[in-house]
Amino acid sequence: MKKLKNVKVPLTVPSYAKKEYINNYLELTKGTGRVMIFAGDQKIEHMNDDFFGEGIAEEDANPEHLFNIASLGKICAFATQLGLIARYGEDYSKIPYIVKINSKTHLVKTRDPISRALVTIEDVIDLKERGLNILGVGYTIYPGSEYEHIMFREASKIILEAHKHGLIAILWSYPRGKNVKDEKDPHLIAGAAGIALCLGADFVKVNYPGDPYKFKEAVLAAGRCGVLCAGGSKIDEEKFLKQIWEQINISGAKGNATGRNIHQRPLEEAIKMCNAIYAITIEGKSLEEAIKILRG
Amino acid sequence: MKKLKNVKVPLTVPSYAKKEYINNYLELTKGTGRVMIFAGDQKIEHMNDDFFGEGIAEEDANPEHLFNIASLGKICAFATQLGLIARYGEDYSKIPYIVKINSKTHLVKTRDPISRALVTIEDVIDLKERGLNILGVGYTIYPGSEYEHIMFREASKIILEAHKHGLIAILWSYPRGKNVKDEKDPHLIAGAAGIALCLGADFVKVNYPGDPYKFKEAVLAAGRCGVLCAGGSKIDEEKFLKQIWEQINISGAKGNATGRNIHQRPLEEAIKMCNAIYAITIEGKSLEEAIKILRG
Amino acid sequence: MKKLKNVKVPLTVPSYAKKEYINNYLELTKGTGRVMIFAGDQKIEHMNDDFFGEGIAEEDANPEHLFNIASLGKICAFATQLGLIARYGEDYSKIPYIVKINSKTHLVKTRDPISRALVTIEDVIDLKERGLNILGVGYTIYPGSEYEHIMFREASKIILEAHKHGLIAILWSYPRGKNVKDEKDPHLIAGAAGIALCLGADFVKVNYPGDPYKFKEAVLAAGRCGVLCAGGSKIDEEKFLKQIWEQINISGAKGNATGRNIHQRPLEEAIKMCNAIYAITIEGKSLEEAIKILRG
Amino acid sequence: MKKLKNVKVPLTVPSYAKKEYINNYLELTKGTGRVMIFAGDQKIEHMNDDFFGEGIAEEDANPEHLFNIASLGKICAFATQLGLIARYGEDYSKIPYIVKINSKTHLVKTRDPISRALVTIEDVIDLKERGLNILGVGYTIYPGSEYEHIMFREASKIILEAHKHGLIAILWSYPRGKNVKDEKDPHLIAGAAGIALCLGADFVKVNYPGDPYKFKEAVLAAGRCGVLCAGGSKIDEEKFLKQIWEQINISGAKGNATGRNIHQRPLEEAIKMCNAIYAITIEGKSLEEAIKILRG
Amino acid sequence: MKKLKNVKVPLTVPSYAKKEYINNYLELTKGTGRVMIFAGDQKIEHMNDDFFGEGIAEEDANPEHLFNIASLGKICAFATQLGLIARYGEDYSKIPYIVKINSKTHLVKTRDPISRALVTIEDVIDLKERGLNILGVGYTIYPGSEYEHIMFREASKIILEAHKHGLIAILWSYPRGKNVKDEKDPHLIAGAAGIALCLGADFVKVNYPGDPYKFKEAVLAAGRCGVLCAGGSKIDEEKFLKQIWEQINISGAKGNATGRNIHQRPLEEAIKMCNAIYAITIEGKSLEEAIKILRG
Repeated sequence: MKKLKNVKVPLTVPSYAKKEYINNYLELTKGTGRVMIFAGDQKIEHMNDDFFGEGIAEEDANPEHLFNIASLGKICAFATQLGLIARYGEDYSKIPYIVKINSKTHLVKTRDPISRALVTIEDVIDLKERGLNILGVGYTIYPGSEYEHIMFREASKIILEAHKHGLIAILWSYPRGKNVKDEKDPHLIAGAAGIALCLGADFVKVNYPGDPYKFKEAVLAAGRCGVLCAGGSKIDEEKFLKQIWEQINISGAKGNATGRNIHQRPLEEAIKMCNAIYAITIEGKSLEEAIKILRG
Repeated sequence: MKKLKNVKVPLTVPSYAKKEYINNYLELTKGTGRVMIFAGDQKIEHMNDDFFGEGIAEEDANPEHLFNIASLGKICAFATQLGLIARYGEDYSKIPYIVKINSKTHLVKTRDPISRALVTIEDVIDLKERGLNILGVGYTIYPGSEYEHIMFREASKIILEAHKHGLIAILWSYPRGKNVKDEKDPHLIAGAAGIALCLGADFVKVNYPGDPYKFKEAVLAAGRCGVLCAGGSKIDEEKFLKQIWEQINISGAKGNATGRNIHQRPLEEAIKMCNAIYAITIEGKSLEEAIKILRG
Repeated sequence: MKKLKNVKVPLTVPSYAKKEYINNYLELTKGTGRVMIFAGDQKIEHMNDDFFGEGIAEEDANPEHLFNIASLGKICAFATQLGLIARYGEDYSKIPYIVKINSKTHLVKTRDPISRALVTIEDVIDLKERGLNILGVGYTIYPGSEYEHIMFREASKIILEAHKHGLIAILWSYPRGKNVKDEKDPHLIAGAAGIALCLGADFVKVNYPGDPYKFKEAVLAAGRCGVLCAGGSKIDEEKFLKQIWEQINISGAKGNATGRNIHQRPLEEAIKMCNAIYAITIEGKSLEEAIKILRG
Repeated sequence: MKKLKNVKVPLTVPSYAKKEYINNYLELTKGTGRVMIFAGDQKIEHMNDDFFGEGIAEEDANPEHLFNIASLGKICAFATQLGLIARYGEDYSKIPYIVKINSKTHLVKTRDPISRALVTIEDVIDLKERGLNILGVGYTIYPGSEYEHIMFREASKIILEAHKHGLIAILWSYPRGKNVKDEKDPHLIAGAAGIALCLGADFVKVNYPGDPYKFKEAVLAAGRCGVLCAGGSKIDEEKFLKQIWEQINISGAKGNATGRNIHQRPLEEAIKMCNAIYAITIEGKSLEEAIKILRG
Repeated sequence: MKKLKNVKVPLTVPSYAKKEYINNYLELTKGTGRVMIFAGDQKIEHMNDDFFGEGIAEEDANPEHLFNIASLGKICAFATQLGLIARYGEDYSKIPYIVKINSKTHLVKTRDPISRALVTIEDVIDLKERGLNILGVGYTIYPGSEYEHIMFREASKIILEAHKHGLIAILWSYPRGKNVKDEKDPHLIAGAAGIALCLGADFVKVNYPGDPYKFKEAVLAAGRCGVLCAGGSKIDEEKFLKQIWEQINISGAKGNATGRNIHQRPLEEAIKMCNAIYAITIEGKSLEEAIKILRG
């Protein structure tokens, strides 16, 4: 993979925070501008559904499984809630972290989704100063929800605040609610990506519409905001890697954020999956090479 | 076009900010008291609908298209969200900007509209001090919405705060919601213009009712607050220019804010459209001269 | 009219602000304890309905009409929104102003009314210090609305804050909403007046129930809070003056606040109407004398 | 009546405010631990219904009637809104006051009740420092209302803040709303009393269930928080005094807060009623003696 | 019981508060990492239902019963509201306290539950500095409620703030509302436990699903956040102790929080029940030994 020559720093980053921002950006993207995130915020988002049950590795029932994967697999960052990081972080201080700022459960189905910040950027900086390798923050918006105005506003403030501290800001942007007919519509996903750009995010995680050519619309719409693909529920692993390869090499995505497709496997397998995704995303390997790594 | 002899500064501008206000006012209006705005806040407002699809130039899919137009066409200011400006601004620092403070998506249809501030005036000033040519701010209110009280209040505070920094404050004032029968009713539009005056705005962008004579009511109602016409969806270009000419020369409007009718064209055409609108609005050219520029 | 010997200053006025309060009180009431307000907040409240249409003087379409009346007619104060005052105030700095703090449109009919403060007392003081003759503030409450608690609270805070700066505080108190059967019920109006007293207001503007004897209940209920009558929609001018005379001389009201019955007339007539109302309210003239002034 | 040997000061009172708290407590309870409050917050709560109409003394229409009673009758404190106190207080500065912090009207019937603070403790202290004899504050909660969480939270904050200034904190605790079947259920009333204890109140005013033996449950449930009985609507005076005597001498209540049963009478009678209630509550007199005072 | 060698301090505890945190943790868990809490927050949560009626000891009607039990029985901490603690605390200053930050009544049944903080951590620290032995705080969240976002956010802030002062933070985590079908579903309870971990809690109190083997899922899901079992309504005492023994020795729970099963008994019996639970939880005694203590 070609290394970046220089990093485009948005003007929301003040001059005193530029160096920190560039360092975080280069570390997060391993100097490539691309990102492979291990996403582990589902303990609130999906409660225990993603961690216990049929087809899920037994060790996934213990939250430490996430930290084991994150410390042994090749990843750019492990994204999860501050409270979880704080509880295990001292034993896993080398892991690069993205603090997921807001989360809600999937239980609430009786109205449009809303998810609010659990912590402030100040809290994140406090944790970072206690020795953790925190590179950035993540926040979820639900465009189309009756509460989008609350989340847009909070997202914007968090991005601005994060940039003041040189942190990378990633939005999870999922159109959802009674106003949203088809969450996988590529045109809608492109819109969701464009919103993130306008709110000032460095990267935006969106749902993958399934077709790498149609997905180009979203990559274009996001402009200088890098598009990351959500991994979604666990699927066949070769099919999954092929998807990731196509997202990057056909659609022009800047990377991915994968949770269930990694942590629902036993540790060894999970590590190999990380390494395979990383190979495609960061090391510029072919699909075949990645599958070889997976089969390891 | 006759140049203004002096600028009427509202008393919400403190004495220490008067010079800044006058400079911004003269630069925004090119010394004429009139304004031609290139409006580009649709990436949140309409998501990707205005940028991709049938009848839209392919290059509009990339947000940089907006900046190319804004830097090469004749305009008074380019209005869009702070996050977008921050991402491209360093490469386009000569463009005069209006920061659009609030935005919502058109997805939410299940209740009266609400749109909240994404950033503060403090954030705008931070950006300006990083070298951008920011002349003012924009904010949308929806009179008649059940949430109008939230937006009126926020609009008022933003105008006051903007004036404290010498920034020009523009309201987008669109009656909307289940209490609003006909958004194009000239009497209603006049009311929407009058509200902006009472909230302290320097200019108010309203929908055009279609008839330049009936539109006079709004221009009168707005008093010393200058009325700008929203461009609306893309229409036949000569018809569009005629409309603009009539708004100014018959109705007495102070200008316009046009988005789709500009950026949905290829760059060259978009630039010509800017120049043609500018010719009518700022240079006092006739409709025929403007059409010649467009055909240029 | 007998002049007041001394002004009863409420204890919410701190000692350092007493002199200012007394000066404002004496100026507002012309030393009589009575008040004749020219009310011009309808550009938000009723949008353009009160300013343009059948039976309305053509010049009323221009907001400057309000300032012309206020500067040429005899009035105690002109009440309108801060944004409007700020735009014209430098040219009309001698007018005594009451800043109307909150306003809503009449469009919203789908739920109980709510109206929130658009500006703070701090903003009012800023404007006053820029040379305007601001004597006090006004705020509307809607008892019986589901949102009364929000407005009661805000009204109370605004009154306390106003008194800290020696400003006179006037409440517009209109029972309204689905819990209110008859807005003209004298007993209900009396209740509305009593609420204003308990919230600390100096004067309360209420609807007039139509019968000067029944209206006495409200004057009694308001105790030391002076009752002002809302002018309401434009009616026959002699009937209107008779009403005003009866409110003061039979019911014991402390004055009135009139809008449409003044500004919907051409300037000359509007001035005469002001002078006629003023004659009854402040100069203690008889109805006949007032009519003579009107016919003048 | 036996005088208290010492006052139990809750730990929410900081040491620097202990002396003030003890003084206020002793003055409020006349050294007995019992309280007789003259409650006059109905001008907002019930608007003019309690002050004008059949069976109500004519002089009650004027709010000064309340102050006349409070200054001439024997009472422990007069409880009403700050705005009202501020308007008459200079002429009635000897009256011991309880500032009623929140109030709503009885008009709003379309949803569960909510009542919010109109003023802050800081505002109360300001007034006290201007020479008024303010001993404490009152706040109403409506357990069972959908909005109870807002009022519980506000009540708790107000109690803590009041104690920081050595003020006595009294809760009015009325279960109400669509979740409440029977507001006079002694078991429910006991619960309402217990809530006040847990929120930190010094006294709690509750509805009287009608049976002095069943009412014991509430007195027990409130523990060290003294139970006061609401007077309710005007009833036969001997029956009323008997009720008060039983509440104290059978149930163990610490006193009462009476409004309509006092102020709806002409001044002389109202004073006698105060004195009769006071005799039972504070002076330990028998029912017969109290009736004699009433008959005076 | 084996004593802990060292305490795992989460990174949300700043270095200056570590010693305090460790002391509180060791005192709360008696050096074992396990916790036996006497829960007494029902006076708000269930009003007087848990304290008065059939099958409830008569002395439970008086709130001092709780303090008598807490001071005479073996417990790790007594958890209740700040207001109640403040009223009795000076006489019971040796009791180790957990301040329950939020509470609601069970009356509100017409919508999803919401419970808000009544006091701040600052208020808790104030009380502690007045000589009380406060070890930590408790807060209830209702995952699945439409209002979960409000409580998640508040819980997170309270935990962070508590840790800044070295206080132990315990969440009560009860899925509830119209989105929740079966509150006793072990998988759902596991999810509720995992949420507490991600919010940063030290311990989480959850409902017991009834089967100690199925309950293991929750203990696993909570990871380094210790799981405590709610006692629930009063049941047969031997069955109750067996349950507690199984929760700890089969499921791996870290303890329990029991209210009604203790305080609804007469003092002597209540103390024995405390001691029996304590024996199992903290002293590692067998079920038989515990029953012997109970039979005393």
